[in-house]
Amino acid sequence: MATATLTIASKNYGSWSLRGWLLCKMAGLDFEEQIVNSDDPSTRAELLLLSPSFLVPCLTHDGIKVWDTLAIAEYLNEILPQAGLLPEDRAARAHCRSISGEMHSGFTNLRSALPMNIKAHHPGFKVWVGAQADIDRVVSIWRECLAKAAGPFLFGPSPGMADAMFAPVVTRFLTYDVKLDSDCAAYAQTIMNLPAMQEWIDGAKAEPDEVVELDVEF
Amino acid sequence: MATATLTIASKNYGSWSLRGWLLCKMAGLDFEEQIVNSDDPSTRAELLLLSPSFLVPCLTHDGIKVWDTLAIAEYLNEILPQAGLLPEDRAARAHCRSISGEMHSGFTNLRSALPMNIKAHHPGFKVWVGAQADIDRVVSIWRECLAKAAGPFLFGPSPGMADAMFAPVVTRFLTYDVKLDSDCAAYAQTIMNLPAMQEWIDGAKAEPDEVVELDVEF
Repeated sequence: MATATLTIASKNYGSWSLRGWLLCKMAGLDFEEQIVNSDDPSTRAELLLLSPSFLVPCLTHDGIKVWDTLAIAEYLNEILPQAGLLPEDRAARAHCRSISGEMHSGFTNLRSALPMNIKAHHPGFKVWVGAQADIDRVVSIWRECLAKAAGPFLFGPSPGMADAMFAPVVTRFLTYDVKLDSDCAAYAQTIMNLPAMQEWIDGAKAEPDEVVELDVEF
Repeated sequence: MATATLTIASKNYGSWSLRGWLLCKMAGLDFEEQIVNSDDPSTRAELLLLSPSFLVPCLTHDGIKVWDTLAIAEYLNEILPQAGLLPEDRAARAHCRSISGEMHSGFTNLRSALPMNIKAHHPGFKVWVGAQADIDRVVSIWRECLAKAAGPFLFGPSPGMADAMFAPVVTRFLTYDVKLDSDCAAYAQTIMNLPAMQEWIDGAKAEPDEVVELDVEF
């Protein structure tokens, strides 16, 4: 029996849920998923981008509740350090936390103009100039990491906290047909090829389409 | 000579700068302040709430750059663990990171309706209902922490990461005359009485008023 539970919202739309879920998978945590109903206020808050870190995703483990993606990452790194969610080197760790924090509190234009919608695909999507500045910043973050750590992940040979934080952005770039240079395209493919990512995407595809209403309401 | 530099924006308006600066003070770090010009794009981004964690505040220490408030807190906790920025108990630490993360990525309505402006005081300010929900959540977070840890700070007898994250909210509650119950009012006073907080406020008051233009532009 799993001793941990991760409460998540929609797999198609819940970008914070995806981050928390990937972190648990990367850490090798034995956990049960609990998907909250899409009528639940917390789910709606997450999906409507009103309150991204409010109550979903939420990890319950050993009687402890952790309800923010960065807090979940730090918690998992403490209880399962061998998974290497954060880099071992102090400077790399500070860099990892800085870009993860930037993703956590910034990129408002990207989030609202290109909401996560794994099932959708919009070839030739016209990106608003405000969101383009966010895209450029993401690309610059990725390029700097890939140049330093030589990939295929942002901080070296295995996936970690920063990759989980940027994974929903990877799906957005594919959904909205954002053109990437070869290094960034290869990184995006690396993320999409993760078995955990494929499992999540299968879950998103299996979700009933009625949830789409939430998307329209925003 | 200080080996560390903290780059900050306006002391009157820069809520993220205040968080990073308080963290350095609480950690007992020997650092020099570098105040970026208010015409600098990073400052404007922070002050106009466009990109809260972009490049200000930024801590440079030992050749390492850390440019996000939560990342700065974690970094300081690593290099100066005796300062106790994070609680020693694992459950309390997870709680501290959860509410710090919630502050970091949420409370959008509170931020835009009640921007930090230390010099100002608006008695009888009418708070928009959307921001009131954020205020209610802050109060609920504070009450839970103060009940658990018995104060006077959110996680016990000394100030730490969560207090730094909520300090700009304390100044907003005073600026916009937000009514608080006695426990929360006492907590707000505790934060305002911190010598570091008084030093920051003196700095804010000494700032030339021309920076006010930025406020009007938003």
